[in-house]
Amino acid sequence: MPELKIPERLLLGPGPSNVPAAVRQALAQRVIGHLDPAFLTLLDEVQGMLRALFQTDTALALPISGTGSAGMEACLVNLLEPGDTALVAVQGVFGERMISIVERIGARAVRIEAEMGAVIPEAQFIEAIRTQKPDLVALVHAETSTGVAQPVPKVAHAARELGALVVLDCVTSLSGMDMRFDEWAIDAAYSGTQKCLSCPPGLSPIAFGPRALERLEHRRTPVQSWYLDLSLIGRYFGQERVYHHTAPVSMIYALHTTLRLVLEEGLEARFARHREAHALLVEGLERLGFEMLVEPAYRLPMLNAVVPPFEDEASVRHRLLTQYNIEIGAGLGKLAGRIWRIGLMGENASSQVVERLLAALRELI
Amino acid sequence: MPELKIPERLLLGPGPSNVPAAVRQALAQRVIGHLDPAFLTLLDEVQGMLRALFQTDTALALPISGTGSAGMEACLVNLLEPGDTALVAVQGVFGERMISIVERIGARAVRIEAEMGAVIPEAQFIEAIRTQKPDLVALVHAETSTGVAQPVPKVAHAARELGALVVLDCVTSLSGMDMRFDEWAIDAAYSGTQKCLSCPPGLSPIAFGPRALERLEHRRTPVQSWYLDLSLIGRYFGQERVYHHTAPVSMIYALHTTLRLVLEEGLEARFARHREAHALLVEGLERLGFEMLVEPAYRLPMLNAVVPPFEDEASVRHRLLTQYNIEIGAGLGKLAGRIWRIGLMGENASSQVVERLLAALRELI
Repeated sequence: MPELKIPERLLLGPGPSNVPAAVRQALAQRVIGHLDPAFLTLLDEVQGMLRALFQTDTALALPISGTGSAGMEACLVNLLEPGDTALVAVQGVFGERMISIVERIGARAVRIEAEMGAVIPEAQFIEAIRTQKPDLVALVHAETSTGVAQPVPKVAHAARELGALVVLDCVTSLSGMDMRFDEWAIDAAYSGTQKCLSCPPGLSPIAFGPRALERLEHRRTPVQSWYLDLSLIGRYFGQERVYHHTAPVSMIYALHTTLRLVLEEGLEARFARHREAHALLVEGLERLGFEMLVEPAYRLPMLNAVVPPFEDEASVRHRLLTQYNIEIGAGLGKLAGRIWRIGLMGENASSQVVERLLAALRELI
Repeated sequence: MPELKIPERLLLGPGPSNVPAAVRQALAQRVIGHLDPAFLTLLDEVQGMLRALFQTDTALALPISGTGSAGMEACLVNLLEPGDTALVAVQGVFGERMISIVERIGARAVRIEAEMGAVIPEAQFIEAIRTQKPDLVALVHAETSTGVAQPVPKVAHAARELGALVVLDCVTSLSGMDMRFDEWAIDAAYSGTQKCLSCPPGLSPIAFGPRALERLEHRRTPVQSWYLDLSLIGRYFGQERVYHHTAPVSMIYALHTTLRLVLEEGLEARFARHREAHALLVEGLERLGFEMLVEPAYRLPMLNAVVPPFEDEASVRHRLLTQYNIEIGAGLGKLAGRIWRIGLMGENASSQVVERLLAALRELI
């Protein structure tokens, strides 16, 4: 039977990022039952810390028992019904994924699109909401396939005024850049654990605000997924503690420890750390002849889409992994073969990490 | 910020069961990327070991990134389309859950029901398949809410002859009692990691046989869940390695180690160990005045539904947990307040564990 053999890697792709030892040690703790009073206390603490992370006082916040994509599906299947209209911003692969989910629900997906590497201008976005009168507007805050930061608050406020719910993908942004659920007028948001939180992949923290919960309560049809039905999941996380599915206990331990570490650092300090590492990386890469795909105003700090100054990007990427144990991300979708995606997420947003990558690149090219 | 505080418990409920130190140490290993060649090797090894576990040479076997209930939903949403008919065996809570999922798909659920604690007689089941001519037959091998082992092979063979696909819930049975995917003519099966595998909850091993994969390929409509769409997930687990979602890396480490331990012990030896612990428990409980809910021929070895010889079951259960750190399960659904569910799963199927529980009960009652 095969033994477990894990190489040591510096994870500078689009996630997972490296996980601190304290979080890995939490994973190794003894398992207890999902209805044990001690575990229910942990769940309450996780929910409280998630509200702080999403910057919300009013939303129901909890971890979905699946990866970030399960969180995307959870938000959309709970809030949309067949025949509804969703306006979906497509700036890359993850907007396309939303379209696919909306269509599988039997809802109508109207797309508003940006060039790869560009944002959707706010005025154009708001005009589309006005024209299309959608039931729901869905957009990606930090598009991991292109490195673009979509401006959110004005669009979200306009959508709320026009009666549409706003679903925000924060998979890559959460805890790496500012994201204010209540202040920005977001109704539902989802994230993943393996990006700026530096927790292993496997859970999707989500937040559902009062308007989203009301929409859920007044649905005409059942939520099409039993596993992701928030009206059932909410009864386990709420006071009733009604069994829904067996919670992924060990991953909840990891998330609990992660959230403590993140909140002890403080959100503002963490955002600043991501910005500083990003600035160092851009400076170093430009000196080596790389070009940034995205214009400065809309660059993500934690996910850098860069155009290499050489043809054979795959071979350099391969040597970075095999000779230097550094993983970076390839281009995805239409950008495959054209860009690299360099992540400086969570633990890895530091000058030492940037220096280690730049030193390796200087030797390789 | 709250610290992680985990009590030490003996987990004798319906799952999770206690997790061996080697598996918990695997969880604590460094995280690597989901497209890292070293991780893809691990995935191949996991798939090979899962085939051995399901006793299949022909099926696609892989872990779904969710708990056992996600595996249930994955099997049903991939194989059913709106308008299809599913004959669902309901011997307890988990059969009811299947009905709910079938109906959310827009398929027609026909139920065949047993009294709580009884099986559905094979002849009656086969007659129902003949009469109803369903597209799919779904049944629970080991019904965790009642402790009943439903006889499977004759029913599955009859369903195959009559042209229906067979979906088998093995959440509680897998690796604790015999389950032969190929020999019994099963088309799709799902399980959970936290029962007889003694791995933390969070993954659902599934197997899809050739007829199930063919049905999937010839669907008229898209699978309603993007996250659970096996035609997409299969491309990541197959040779193409197309990114679908970020695999739950640490949990895959745990499953890899679990599968090695299970196969090193050997399936037959593991089944025998579960039978022996069960026999000891029944003998000891009957001496204390407990009655078994299920008649001997249909009792599960790993999940014992027992009727306590006293009124206030909740208070004794509570004292077991708080004074002895032993968790057992309450009744679920219609059996709430009437039975206990005592699990002897995986690690916990041993005479020492049975003795520890009986000693505590002798003191308490």
